[in-house]
Amino acid sequence: MALELYWGSGSPFAWRVMLTLEVKGLEYESKLMEFSRGDHKAADFLKLNPRGKVPVLKDGDFVLNESLAIMAYLDRKHPDPSLFGTSPPETGLIWRAISETESYLIDAGNKLIRPIFFGKGLEKTDEIQEAARSIRQELKRIDAELADSTWVVGTQISAADICLFPLVQIIARAAGKDAAKPLNLELLPMSEKFPNVMAWVKRIESLAGYERTYPPHWR
Amino acid sequence: MALELYWGSGSPFAWRVMLTLEVKGLEYESKLMEFSRGDHKAADFLKLNPRGKVPVLKDGDFVLNESLAIMAYLDRKHPDPSLFGTSPPETGLIWRAISETESYLIDAGNKLIRPIFFGKGLEKTDEIQEAARSIRQELKRIDAELADSTWVVGTQISAADICLFPLVQIIARAAGKDAAKPLNLELLPMSEKFPNVMAWVKRIESLAGYERTYPPHWR
Repeated sequence: MALELYWGSGSPFAWRVMLTLEVKGLEYESKLMEFSRGDHKAADFLKLNPRGKVPVLKDGDFVLNESLAIMAYLDRKHPDPSLFGTSPPETGLIWRAISETESYLIDAGNKLIRPIFFGKGLEKTDEIQEAARSIRQELKRIDAELADSTWVVGTQISAADICLFPLVQIIARAAGKDAAKPLNLELLPMSEKFPNVMAWVKRIESLAGYERTYPPHWR
Repeated sequence: MALELYWGSGSPFAWRVMLTLEVKGLEYESKLMEFSRGDHKAADFLKLNPRGKVPVLKDGDFVLNESLAIMAYLDRKHPDPSLFGTSPPETGLIWRAISETESYLIDAGNKLIRPIFFGKGLEKTDEIQEAARSIRQELKRIDAELADSTWVVGTQISAADICLFPLVQIIARAAGKDAAKPLNLELLPMSEKFPNVMAWVKRIESLAGYERTYPPHWR
């Protein structure tokens, strides 16, 4: 039975799972949820994930939510290519990079992205600029690491790259919106501020299957 | 060369690593950092972790921070007993439980614990009660799951238990403080509100080596 992936356009967490599926060359049935139509709050979906969030993966009778959990599941079931390292130190460094993304980038990202995309809280300029400062700091650190490394950890794409990538894309998109202009976020042009990060973005964009993961409503 | 663990008394993240070391029966050299003395901001420590946070594990020349990363590293290097599952579904469910702890309990926990322990923001009663509501909801969900299961996932202790446990202990400790009494958090007595969670706490407390992990300044 084919894998089924419930996802939403522009969800960074669903995007991680789609990239995982492409990197591993796994076929899946796409179940695109329309948030504006409330698909994620419909009774049938809440049976799969009572939290009403994407992504959700269905593999036969086994149903799983939470992006990292789905990635770990898929990696364990289809270990080639490995996304979580081939030695204890590599595994440790990949999880460290993921933890840093989760701890230091997601929160700051939310504080910046939501006001810009949804227009709510745009008046909290202190909070938004504090968030932009944290994002700049994290991206600068990652930019320095990518100066002499193709991937965030190790010599092949890993879960560390896949977890980070959709957030970088969404932050870049938010920073380019008209609503962001008066906020002076100092994030653009990203190719000047964070050249190594943007070269890494291009590498991921050129992966086979990447186009299938790109948020349809961004086109 | 022995493992070295840099930790601080009462850090839930350091506590996770100590429990991992005990469950795996690994010896380590304890490096207790005194936050009040600023040990975590000292130059020597910042060389190990520029973020100035515990836990940090040193294994010969290999240095690693971030609790989940250290746990994944130790599990990969010393796989018996396995803390991240013995089948793809178990691995997925363990990482789901960890993700839920990270996403839904830590933030709410911080909003409740910090004001009570440090007296800052105690006037934000709406925010604290919102946090208490989230915590009650998560603990009730976990309590229901533990009604017919010894451990959070599977039939043996896993990283899902170890990641959750220190947070439950700290929440219980915060809820019992004098500063918490006027806040009406509806978390106590935990043995009545969440009986299965508290039975599970007792199981972990009776593990060999548990006493060595207990925060010294709590005694």
